[in-house]
Amino acid sequence: MNVYADNAATTRMSQTALDAVRDCMENTWGNPSSLYETGQKAKTALEQARERVAAALNALPGEILFTSGGSEADNQAIRGAAALGKAKGKTHIISTTIEHHAVLHTLKRLEREGFTVTLLPVDAEGLVTARQVAEAIRDDTCLVTVMYANNEIGTVEPIAEIGAVCRERGVLFHTDAVQAAGHLPVDVKADNVDLLSLSGHKFHGPKGVGALYVRRGVRIPPLIEGGSQERGKRAGTENLPGIVGMAAALSEAVERLPEETARLTGMRDALIAGLSEIPYGVLNGARTNRLPGSVSFCFEAIEGESIILLLDDLGISVSSGSACTSGSLDPSHVLLAIGRPHEIAHGSVRITLGAYNDASQVPYIVDSVKAVVERLRNMSPVWRDLNEGKRQHVIPA
Amino acid sequence: MNVYADNAATTRMSQTALDAVRDCMENTWGNPSSLYETGQKAKTALEQARERVAAALNALPGEILFTSGGSEADNQAIRGAAALGKAKGKTHIISTTIEHHAVLHTLKRLEREGFTVTLLPVDAEGLVTARQVAEAIRDDTCLVTVMYANNEIGTVEPIAEIGAVCRERGVLFHTDAVQAAGHLPVDVKADNVDLLSLSGHKFHGPKGVGALYVRRGVRIPPLIEGGSQERGKRAGTENLPGIVGMAAALSEAVERLPEETARLTGMRDALIAGLSEIPYGVLNGARTNRLPGSVSFCFEAIEGESIILLLDDLGISVSSGSACTSGSLDPSHVLLAIGRPHEIAHGSVRITLGAYNDASQVPYIVDSVKAVVERLRNMSPVWRDLNEGKRQHVIPA
Repeated sequence: MNVYADNAATTRMSQTALDAVRDCMENTWGNPSSLYETGQKAKTALEQARERVAAALNALPGEILFTSGGSEADNQAIRGAAALGKAKGKTHIISTTIEHHAVLHTLKRLEREGFTVTLLPVDAEGLVTARQVAEAIRDDTCLVTVMYANNEIGTVEPIAEIGAVCRERGVLFHTDAVQAAGHLPVDVKADNVDLLSLSGHKFHGPKGVGALYVRRGVRIPPLIEGGSQERGKRAGTENLPGIVGMAAALSEAVERLPEETARLTGMRDALIAGLSEIPYGVLNGARTNRLPGSVSFCFEAIEGESIILLLDDLGISVSSGSACTSGSLDPSHVLLAIGRPHEIAHGSVRITLGAYNDASQVPYIVDSVKAVVERLRNMSPVWRDLNEGKRQHVIPA
Repeated sequence: MNVYADNAATTRMSQTALDAVRDCMENTWGNPSSLYETGQKAKTALEQARERVAAALNALPGEILFTSGGSEADNQAIRGAAALGKAKGKTHIISTTIEHHAVLHTLKRLEREGFTVTLLPVDAEGLVTARQVAEAIRDDTCLVTVMYANNEIGTVEPIAEIGAVCRERGVLFHTDAVQAAGHLPVDVKADNVDLLSLSGHKFHGPKGVGALYVRRGVRIPPLIEGGSQERGKRAGTENLPGIVGMAAALSEAVERLPEETARLTGMRDALIAGLSEIPYGVLNGARTNRLPGSVSFCFEAIEGESIILLLDDLGISVSSGSACTSGSLDPSHVLLAIGRPHEIAHGSVRITLGAYNDASQVPYIVDSVKAVVERLRNMSPVWRDLNEGKRQHVIPA
């Protein structure tokens, strides 16, 4: 059985998105900035895609800016808000310890440029509260950036509550919604969000394209300078096939959201139940307040990379955390932030489901993970030490 | 007859590139950072594409960085080289007055940040010389950025000579080769280039993807921060279908370069000969030292936008200069730089040919432009004034 269950890393494109990209590449290949008909046809397709993405977020079309992906959107949102803040003498930014590296590394760079960054800690489930944000806001705070849902452990943050606090205090609020868009109902107006990032390939759309919602009236500068595309906010000929494909995938995901949420949540909960039978393992993230298709466990005496490779031999594709840092030997900053000790933060498995998964795969995944964990533990000197009482368990049986 | 002749704005994708993108979207949709087979297959495709792009430029695979397009590549190259320079106390940059806005606007931003920029003037054909560059280099010069070939007038700059000067003087040299890659033989080693930008959709590849050549040993920082993709130089999940499609298109273009150069040059010269028959018109750019498929004329007493729209009615898609600024009412900075007076810089027509054009289209284009110019002049009060001697011609008959 072949099971791709790393949908938080990337997704297989939906047929709708594939058809939209292909049709655009073949038939609407003009430059949207060109005056003649071939260009204007492309311009029309661009603006229709903008309307579709806006509708999916309850935004206005003019509030949607197309980018090359979630990382670019995060970079532009944060650097842009920081530039607006600096112009007013405000150089303090609030975020959390569990953000994606596109956020954390951008904040690091801003620190080197003179900004002060407060990273709020999260609780054992990975949650930050609106109260923490309210208490951290200072007179010189120019931006709060908190992710919508965490890519590694699936926890969904209280975005609407944080948005309300930020709006009341007059501080710009950005959320990295790369894992949320197309997976949770996202409403930028109800959530009082000023800036929101999303990425096409996380909801069965194409790679290389994303969007940044910029609330009307928030005038962030471009990250990429040049031509006057995207009303001067993002230079470069638009990736029209990608944009059209992303819009199609997002519309489709939002349309199917109620049924998919129920379907994926059922599979997720069955996975959690099955994997909870493995002794000395622990679920990462909140039990119910999590992304519909997202499961993450730590198992004692296991290396995450070994689980991944042995599961791959069984036809199962899962990851040990964020794909973006898979080459790194450091334990996940997210798992450390929720209190996992170093020795088990290495032993994580993330299983993330999408539109191409079905319930028949759940027992196979559970049985395979059980078998692989057992096999790896049987080879593990750490496991022997634990069994012989030479080492203390850090996770209860 | 339908004639798309605005290939400098964008191109229709080649069948090879289309097939490569489609195949990748359908079959190689994994995340190249993932450890399991689906990811590693994607990683292999990514590195094969990198080898193909490197081979096309006589670069090493490790010297190729994939971006979302030419503008991003230009921004990263220039901001990156500026950051390297600043760290050494060198804050002077040399460029020309006819660069693309992705270069000029980035330089403007650097000026606001404290850099000094020298924009070298060009001659009446749009040429800058290596001697001008040599004379402008100062002890604090950190970067020279000169485009390989101009997007509006087609003039090809003496890149190898400028590269030799820069290498000898120890100054980094960037060239925006967006119009050159796939259209001229580009050899980064022979040309002594340190940084070179290109864009997929200018040579019948996909939109939304480009590349930056970064010579080994030149350690520019990322423009987009986040994950460790592209060896830490460009964060974000790779646009693999775009990258694979661009590599296929570039390989194809380079392979066909000799025959295509001959074919396009023949059509170009026939167009120039035909359009030269129009009185009070002038070719923009060099007569022979220009891109194979590029033609640009100014006609007196004509608005460029009107020519474009009337030619569109005849099925001919051409532009009045750069597509990126087509919404602007300002005359082209390039035409002003080569000495065209304001009143005729507005009356430009750019015809750029590509793989889908053929010689049978040339007479139709020539006849159509002649007819449209005549029609517009017959309606023009300026033309009447010229004929009645109330106004002086600025272009000889």
